[in-house]
Amino acid sequence: MAKYPKQLLSLIAQLQKLPGVGKKTAERFAFHLLEWKRHDLVTLANILSTLQEMVPHCANCGCLMDEVSCSFCESSKRDPSLLCIIASPRDAYALEETGNFLGLYHVLGTLLSPLDGQTPDQLNVPRLMNRIESLGVKEVILALDSTLEGDATALFLKEELQRKDIKVSRLALGLPVGSSLDFIDEGTLSQALSGRQVLH
Amino acid sequence: MAKYPKQLLSLIAQLQKLPGVGKKTAERFAFHLLEWKRHDLVTLANILSTLQEMVPHCANCGCLMDEVSCSFCESSKRDPSLLCIIASPRDAYALEETGNFLGLYHVLGTLLSPLDGQTPDQLNVPRLMNRIESLGVKEVILALDSTLEGDATALFLKEELQRKDIKVSRLALGLPVGSSLDFIDEGTLSQALSGRQVLH
Repeated sequence: MAKYPKQLLSLIAQLQKLPGVGKKTAERFAFHLLEWKRHDLVTLANILSTLQEMVPHCANCGCLMDEVSCSFCESSKRDPSLLCIIASPRDAYALEETGNFLGLYHVLGTLLSPLDGQTPDQLNVPRLMNRIESLGVKEVILALDSTLEGDATALFLKEELQRKDIKVSRLALGLPVGSSLDFIDEGTLSQALSGRQVLH
Repeated sequence: MAKYPKQLLSLIAQLQKLPGVGKKTAERFAFHLLEWKRHDLVTLANILSTLQEMVPHCANCGCLMDEVSCSFCESSKRDPSLLCIIASPRDAYALEETGNFLGLYHVLGTLLSPLDGQTPDQLNVPRLMNRIESLGVKEVILALDSTLEGDATALFLKEELQRKDIKVSRLALGLPVGSSLDFIDEGTLSQALSGRQVLH
């Protein structure tokens, strides 16, 4: 049986590393890329080879920077006394979409997951404590996934932060907006019930 | 609201050109690529920038070549009197998977679709006729999609080939293997009925 040309096989292998991309999808992408204009392929190649230099992480908050400037840390409109702790730089953009948060961010880079080798050391708590000190933070919001790892990390940070005289909160658990009770799992419903919001 | 860094936006725009990739998937891919090892990113970039040189099309059959050799045209085990006409180089690999075809291929590069500007000129019939002549082809198999464009192309080529004294066939239409009658559309069922195979 005929095999794909060598370079095409390498391309398929690389594309399969993307999330949710299996062999069939990688093949489809590879054959599509073969049909791209040379100029477009070179543009994509150039972006990829310089990606990490052009989009570095901010040394303060860990968010993505536009070459040399961090749009969060360098903004004069943001309130440094409110710090939102997130697991990855991507989460900042999700929170920005709400238009409701005007504090600063702090990227952990990972969540606690001892089985995967993610221990408390990797959260770099001293760095977080230094930032809280130097920014004069009054409230910390834990914006972490509602998963086993997210819960463990939130619990761990809550205890670490207890020593400081600051407010610590976590994103509310409850019904997603637009959801119908029929389709909500019992865990979410139970959280929505215990965290019920008083109307009057 | 914060925008993604410029280079990340360009990457997302490029990735959205891939088939079936919308904005959300492109963002997911882009953030994943940011986490790749530098070495892997450079490998992928190098493959992309040299892809078309390293995987050219065979000047004879139009299939993909491994740098300088065409695994189909240069094989001594294949029967040049049997020619399979396909729309794109990828179709050859699908047919090779069956292990049932040992003739040569001829890639059209496109199917007839006048509304999209794909006219008979683009099928390059003189090139096909020359190949049929020089290879001494006795049978042509039209392995084209069972779509409006595939049907139109098959009809057009059937008429062009009528002048030659060769057998022309087309892939059978009928039930996909493993399918249940309940789920078959009426068009397929009607084709399966009129093309029924005599058992004894």
